[in-house]
Amino acid sequence: MPDLQPLVLYAFAPFAASANPWKVAFILEELGLPYQFEKIQAADTKQHAFLSMNPNGKVPVLRDPNNNNLTTWESGAIIDYLIDVYDDHNILHYNSSPEKHLTRCWEHFQMSGQGPYFGQMVWYTTFHHEILPSVIERYGSEIKRFLGVIDAHLDSQETDYLVGDRVTYADIMFLPYCKGLATVIYPDLDTSQWKNYTAWVDRISSRPAIARALQIMDGAVLQHKEYLALVAEGK
Amino acid sequence: MPDLQPLVLYAFAPFAASANPWKVAFILEELGLPYQFEKIQAADTKQHAFLSMNPNGKVPVLRDPNNNNLTTWESGAIIDYLIDVYDDHNILHYNSSPEKHLTRCWEHFQMSGQGPYFGQMVWYTTFHHEILPSVIERYGSEIKRFLGVIDAHLDSQETDYLVGDRVTYADIMFLPYCKGLATVIYPDLDTSQWKNYTAWVDRISSRPAIARALQIMDGAVLQHKEYLALVAEGK
Repeated sequence: MPDLQPLVLYAFAPFAASANPWKVAFILEELGLPYQFEKIQAADTKQHAFLSMNPNGKVPVLRDPNNNNLTTWESGAIIDYLIDVYDDHNILHYNSSPEKHLTRCWEHFQMSGQGPYFGQMVWYTTFHHEILPSVIERYGSEIKRFLGVIDAHLDSQETDYLVGDRVTYADIMFLPYCKGLATVIYPDLDTSQWKNYTAWVDRISSRPAIARALQIMDGAVLQHKEYLALVAEGK
Repeated sequence: MPDLQPLVLYAFAPFAASANPWKVAFILEELGLPYQFEKIQAADTKQHAFLSMNPNGKVPVLRDPNNNNLTTWESGAIIDYLIDVYDDHNILHYNSSPEKHLTRCWEHFQMSGQGPYFGQMVWYTTFHHEILPSVIERYGSEIKRFLGVIDAHLDSQETDYLVGDRVTYADIMFLPYCKGLATVIYPDLDTSQWKNYTAWVDRISSRPAIARALQIMDGAVLQHKEYLALVAEGK
């Protein structure tokens, strides 16, 4: 798509402190859209300038200079926007029913069922001021249940993707938290028993557009891991 | 809409144990669609028959006999389906930009930012086997922050609704958890300091279609409160 100005994707500095901007970066890469990261300190997300873009004061936020600087927030809504405005060739979505409706089911499961629970795990293993084994166990169990849901679905569908026989934005949205499991979310967990799940993660990760963005993300996660280790030491 | 068969909305028995089916009921009422509740025991949501409708094994699920029994799950995706297929007259959504995109931002904030955190509060105040004050405080703070976000947004916009000058599905989606605050989620919290927020909750609650569904919900919540009290006693 020529003649487009780069879309501006707001993410944290330190870069990997939230998995959510990466969902958006993956979709931008897949759609071949030009974009640039704008890194913002956590404290600045609660200041007026940022709150005027996102009243909830969180990253990611996307500003589109090609569309009157229209600004969207919440990774799910940003991705809905990109699909609606820029996926003219249906690369990442279906227009047919039931596929388009089923894709939304998985999208909302990612937003409400994966993100918050994987995020709670990081909070209680790293940032919370008390060690609370029963809480860590709760989120560990929920993560394993989640892996089982994806694995059983792929198994029963006998397909490579969550909906139909090709990738959609929903598959891709799960990836940042899936990749984060082994690094900062739940490093002790051996996911190899969920064979359909692990093959699906590898399948999505090896797409050329995703692999490009993953290289940047992996470097950021490494930095973030060092930062988390410092936080843990200081506890 | 004549000639439609009732849509089937799966919810828990006990009826009020999840706030999420009520979001869907409110939207069905607003759109004037015929529907019936199908009540299901929690244990049965993990059985094959239910998992074949929703691989994540949770309510709500919506089955539409008018559309080849197409089945959607996750309240956000069910509402997207209803808006897409049945809101022909744009009663609850915008087709214009930026309004349609901004409505999605609030929808995803409800799904990922309100639901999971309000739900954790109920878990740790009622079902968790240990009393953990620092965890309850964490979700209490998050609930207050949430109320501040909605309140400040309505204040700065100087409008009665989250997007533009009329109600959308996004406003309505927040209501079940907002109403649940005073009954089972955080009964000790005085919300009156968030004046724009409380006026907005009252405004949405008093819509005739919502008021109809709220009458059923209030009865169910009362029963559920008695059930939660029994659980707390048995701790």
